[in-house]
Amino acid sequence: MEILRTRQVENEDEVFDLVREDLHSVEKAIDIESVASFDTVTPISKHLQQNRGERLRAALLLLCTRLAGGDGSRRAIQLGAVVEMMHAAALVHDDMIDAQQMRLGRPSRSVLCANGICVLAGDWLYLGAFRVALQEGVLDRVIGVAQMMAMGELIQLNRIGCIGITEADCMEVVNHKTACLFSVCGKLGAVAAGVETREGDRLSEFAWNLGMAFQLIDDIMDFVPCESTPRKPAGSDLKVGKVTLPLVYALEHASTAERNMVAGVLQDRSYDAVPFTEVLALVDRYNGAQRTRARARQFTDRARQIVAQFPDSRCRHALHTLNDLVTEHDWR
Amino acid sequence: MEILRTRQVENEDEVFDLVREDLHSVEKAIDIESVASFDTVTPISKHLQQNRGERLRAALLLLCTRLAGGDGSRRAIQLGAVVEMMHAAALVHDDMIDAQQMRLGRPSRSVLCANGICVLAGDWLYLGAFRVALQEGVLDRVIGVAQMMAMGELIQLNRIGCIGITEADCMEVVNHKTACLFSVCGKLGAVAAGVETREGDRLSEFAWNLGMAFQLIDDIMDFVPCESTPRKPAGSDLKVGKVTLPLVYALEHASTAERNMVAGVLQDRSYDAVPFTEVLALVDRYNGAQRTRARARQFTDRARQIVAQFPDSRCRHALHTLNDLVTEHDWR
Repeated sequence: MEILRTRQVENEDEVFDLVREDLHSVEKAIDIESVASFDTVTPISKHLQQNRGERLRAALLLLCTRLAGGDGSRRAIQLGAVVEMMHAAALVHDDMIDAQQMRLGRPSRSVLCANGICVLAGDWLYLGAFRVALQEGVLDRVIGVAQMMAMGELIQLNRIGCIGITEADCMEVVNHKTACLFSVCGKLGAVAAGVETREGDRLSEFAWNLGMAFQLIDDIMDFVPCESTPRKPAGSDLKVGKVTLPLVYALEHASTAERNMVAGVLQDRSYDAVPFTEVLALVDRYNGAQRTRARARQFTDRARQIVAQFPDSRCRHALHTLNDLVTEHDWR
Repeated sequence: MEILRTRQVENEDEVFDLVREDLHSVEKAIDIESVASFDTVTPISKHLQQNRGERLRAALLLLCTRLAGGDGSRRAIQLGAVVEMMHAAALVHDDMIDAQQMRLGRPSRSVLCANGICVLAGDWLYLGAFRVALQEGVLDRVIGVAQMMAMGELIQLNRIGCIGITEADCMEVVNHKTACLFSVCGKLGAVAAGVETREGDRLSEFAWNLGMAFQLIDDIMDFVPCESTPRKPAGSDLKVGKVTLPLVYALEHASTAERNMVAGVLQDRSYDAVPFTEVLALVDRYNGAQRTRARARQFTDRARQIVAQFPDSRCRHALHTLNDLVTEHDWR
């Protein structure tokens, strides 16, 4: 029993170390479902597996399982593979949509492979996830969240190039695109521990809040110039026509000239006429990032409250730390 | 009871008329799942609904239900919507892969909309199909066939531009891409009639044979120049690097010079250096289409045998007629 061991879990490595062995098993499960049968899918899957950050959802699920009194059972591992395959599938299709040249400092999957293979690789990963979810009896939840995620992308796509985005619009997309899948990680973590109902709802709510914060911080990172670390280049969202919360907050107070400047970037889809530094200055001027970070903290505060209701354990420490890391850390 | 009414069902219209009302209900079910919630998906879905040929799978399922003694129950209609949404989803993603400019005489979905929306529209249709399949308790079969279809596309994509394709290679793709979904139509038809086991297997085998023939005839149509009717232009498959059975048969007897000519088209992905008429002449010279048609007949012969085992009815006539139509008719 871990409950009596309350040694602090202080950094990212220690958080992941707690479930390191299970994460290896998750990788193997993903390999079996996504790689084994297909040479064409292999390079894409392998590429995905190089991003440790990409396994955050499985780690979250496994930690939730432990917090709910379960362990790294076969079921938890299979469900970890399900959420990671869904995330990977959505990434592959999203990448095609964004046609971004860089993600996490490596060529995006769209550049790595022809569009055709990417569509099918995405389909294949989704279907693999669904097949395992079916075996584990959780397909209803998984189909539901996949629909939410696709709907989130559609909503976002519908608003591409629009400057009149509100805070509520942003929250809707953040919920659909990211928080829903996080929420399912919490729920499935409880399922794997065999404690569905009330405990499952709490873990689901915890993970949902974490997901909301995670995406908001990710949106902030698009307004932080950072040349030194290999990651998605700043300004990518705006360049593909997406207006996210930091900019929405800034635009609330912007002058007409400033709004027109942003509208110009949205129209051109480039920083040729208006350099990105001017957009950064605008967001800075009206505390767009600061206000978004404060909004993210509201979600992590709620997440912290929920985790605190569980008995003290290393796993609880790890989830508190993860919660802190989400707002402090650059996950890109 | 229709069993005593054995009036002939002689043409396509009469075949579809038998299940016309149910097909309207299928359309409504598809609307509910795929259109209602999304403006962006609507134009794509509407476009799909203009192709009557695209409802062949639902009609097949509904006819199989009746042959097995069932009727147009809500379940049959829901399952009809499932197979049509899966077919439409696969078409949307395939279109992106082929990037063909024309399909069925109208701009392809890839031209109608940006790639992004097409990926998501495909995902959305798949998820709608899965959701309904889950409600109807047939998701295991549906996920399985979706994997087969995706695998078929991957196999085909892997062989793009290859000249060394064998008859067995072609049959593998035809099975995965088309016959599997037809087979599921037969199976689900039986499920809707409440007669799963033996009758289901027979209907599944019937529909599989029909699907094999259907795809082989579709492959032949790519070698039939037809400017008058609006359809996918001839020579499309080869132009995107796909070698199908009529050409495989011709290449078995072709000279080195003739092989090099085809290799040239595959390499260039165009008919600039070698006009399509020369490829047509080659396929003609070695009876490529004729041999493929004979191969398709073997499948329809088997399909006819299976249907003949059922009691005489208008529905049985209709399926016999459908069987004949598959080899005689241009469905493109």
